[in-house]
Amino acid sequence: MSSSNEPTMTIPTYKDVEIAHERIKPYIHETPVLTSRFLNELTGAELFFKCENLQKAAAFKVRGACNAVFGLSEEKAKIGVATHSSGNHALSLSYAAGQRGIPVTVVMPRTAPQAKKDAVIGYGGKIIECEPSTSSREAVFADVVAESGADFVHPYNDPRVIAGQATCSKELVSQVENLDIVIAPIGGGGMISGTCLTLSNIAPDVKIYAAEPLNADDAARSLKAGHIIADDAPNTVADGLKVPLKDLTWHFVKNHVTDILTATEDEIVDAMKLIWKRMKIVVEPSSAVPLATILKNPEVFKGKRVGVIITGGNVDLDKLPWMNK
Amino acid sequence: MSSSNEPTMTIPTYKDVEIAHERIKPYIHETPVLTSRFLNELTGAELFFKCENLQKAAAFKVRGACNAVFGLSEEKAKIGVATHSSGNHALSLSYAAGQRGIPVTVVMPRTAPQAKKDAVIGYGGKIIECEPSTSSREAVFADVVAESGADFVHPYNDPRVIAGQATCSKELVSQVENLDIVIAPIGGGGMISGTCLTLSNIAPDVKIYAAEPLNADDAARSLKAGHIIADDAPNTVADGLKVPLKDLTWHFVKNHVTDILTATEDEIVDAMKLIWKRMKIVVEPSSAVPLATILKNPEVFKGKRVGVIITGGNVDLDKLPWMNK
Repeated sequence: MSSSNEPTMTIPTYKDVEIAHERIKPYIHETPVLTSRFLNELTGAELFFKCENLQKAAAFKVRGACNAVFGLSEEKAKIGVATHSSGNHALSLSYAAGQRGIPVTVVMPRTAPQAKKDAVIGYGGKIIECEPSTSSREAVFADVVAESGADFVHPYNDPRVIAGQATCSKELVSQVENLDIVIAPIGGGGMISGTCLTLSNIAPDVKIYAAEPLNADDAARSLKAGHIIADDAPNTVADGLKVPLKDLTWHFVKNHVTDILTATEDEIVDAMKLIWKRMKIVVEPSSAVPLATILKNPEVFKGKRVGVIITGGNVDLDKLPWMNK
Repeated sequence: MSSSNEPTMTIPTYKDVEIAHERIKPYIHETPVLTSRFLNELTGAELFFKCENLQKAAAFKVRGACNAVFGLSEEKAKIGVATHSSGNHALSLSYAAGQRGIPVTVVMPRTAPQAKKDAVIGYGGKIIECEPSTSSREAVFADVVAESGADFVHPYNDPRVIAGQATCSKELVSQVENLDIVIAPIGGGGMISGTCLTLSNIAPDVKIYAAEPLNADDAARSLKAGHIIADDAPNTVADGLKVPLKDLTWHFVKNHVTDILTATEDEIVDAMKLIWKRMKIVVEPSSAVPLATILKNPEVFKGKRVGVIITGGNVDLDKLPWMNK
């Protein structure tokens, strides 16, 4: 019995990140880092955008999903994998399972973007729909796992997934020297945890910021409160960031994140459009939250060399958020 | 007196391309080549997209504009440069002139996308508007040059410009080995001429195809007829491809282009949306014409390694063409 209030958990190490990187390299891209003189002048910072929207399946989550899938024993792999996800983890796990040729079932909110559902099906995944709330998602999913016996690959609260996501910052620090800050969006905290895991080991002077929609600011409130605060079904255009922290991601956030900055819905949409317009890349709303917070808090970033993680590019081109404004 | 029916013209050589590349390197990006497994499977070809939408000013035309501007003598540079353009050459010349700190005046059709006009002004260019026809554009422009004495940098019928555009294929063949085909959009023919100039010298086995909107198929008809056919004011969503061939670009087209393939407006818009959706990059309609023709003529491209020049990414995000369908 543990005397801690935290449940027992396996915290991944940097060795796990190195193993993950070797394991997943054949299935992922080393994504490019793009810069924009216009955005540098606008923010007064030097921004280095790590473009995971150009990753396989257009999402960083392919890293963690591939690490989990390709780390399975032959026996476990045959039974397959399952998950619940607001979107990108679902299609990333489908991509990874497809690469290994094993079954995959995903529980998705019925309100998830059609583009993400189509991509899951395109990769050979099987979708089971739930209501758009954390409680419904977890209940429906429990049934799926009980019936199939599939290996549960949690979208973020899984050491294999965090070690996979951590390879993104590992690439970034090899591509850009002397970063002062790295900023990434925070939802469940998988990308931020991976960022913390890597940077605290190989670049401990780099400050880590997280960026969160004000409408789903449970992580920001958690950091202030000193314990996890979870909202059920927050509403934000950044559909990848609606899920709450869990014990493993909370461990990294509370120990390594300098601050969590928030942006309004309008600020997120404006920043998204600015990235499309000036950088000529398609990014989803979640990916624009860091730039929105940089524009809102220039004093934090001015004069700094800032790595900005662009987390994904899965967006419904027929329903662009600035069309509804 | 020449006995030829063609006016006297200076045809650029590959040596000019090498000089151009050294001259412009500080002001341009070596743009990345992106691939898409999905699009490879869809077309049965191996497609290598040379992403000039990620170029400075989001257009390949920066190459030719920089070569012209940075090749000027000090005296000529002081007086400045001028041009007429359907958009990307205008903003590219404005970018180049801004880099050298010299005056630039551009004559643009009043119907040109607002995004392009904004970009010209953002780079410090002065805009004078004309009607959206070749005849109006040339008449208004003649007045501008007569008044200012500025050096006329034609958007494509200029050996300095063609030598500059030719650096794009020079990069491409250094980035991708053993190409069978290179395909690029054709409007006035500047990019295609540069492609012909480079490939005929350093990769003469590579076949060169041009892709043109059916609604503005004057180059395709010219190639069939054996002489330049020029339309005044064709109408197509591919706003960069409305202008006719001129003597210098016709020289390259008639001598080196295997075929000119055409696509309808719907096919262009569908291909554009497909690139955005699968490759997560913002490209303008003109850039999608090659993929549209590849999808329409699979027998030409099947099993081949095909370089596809993505020419630019300047598009009005508030007026996306699939929103009007």
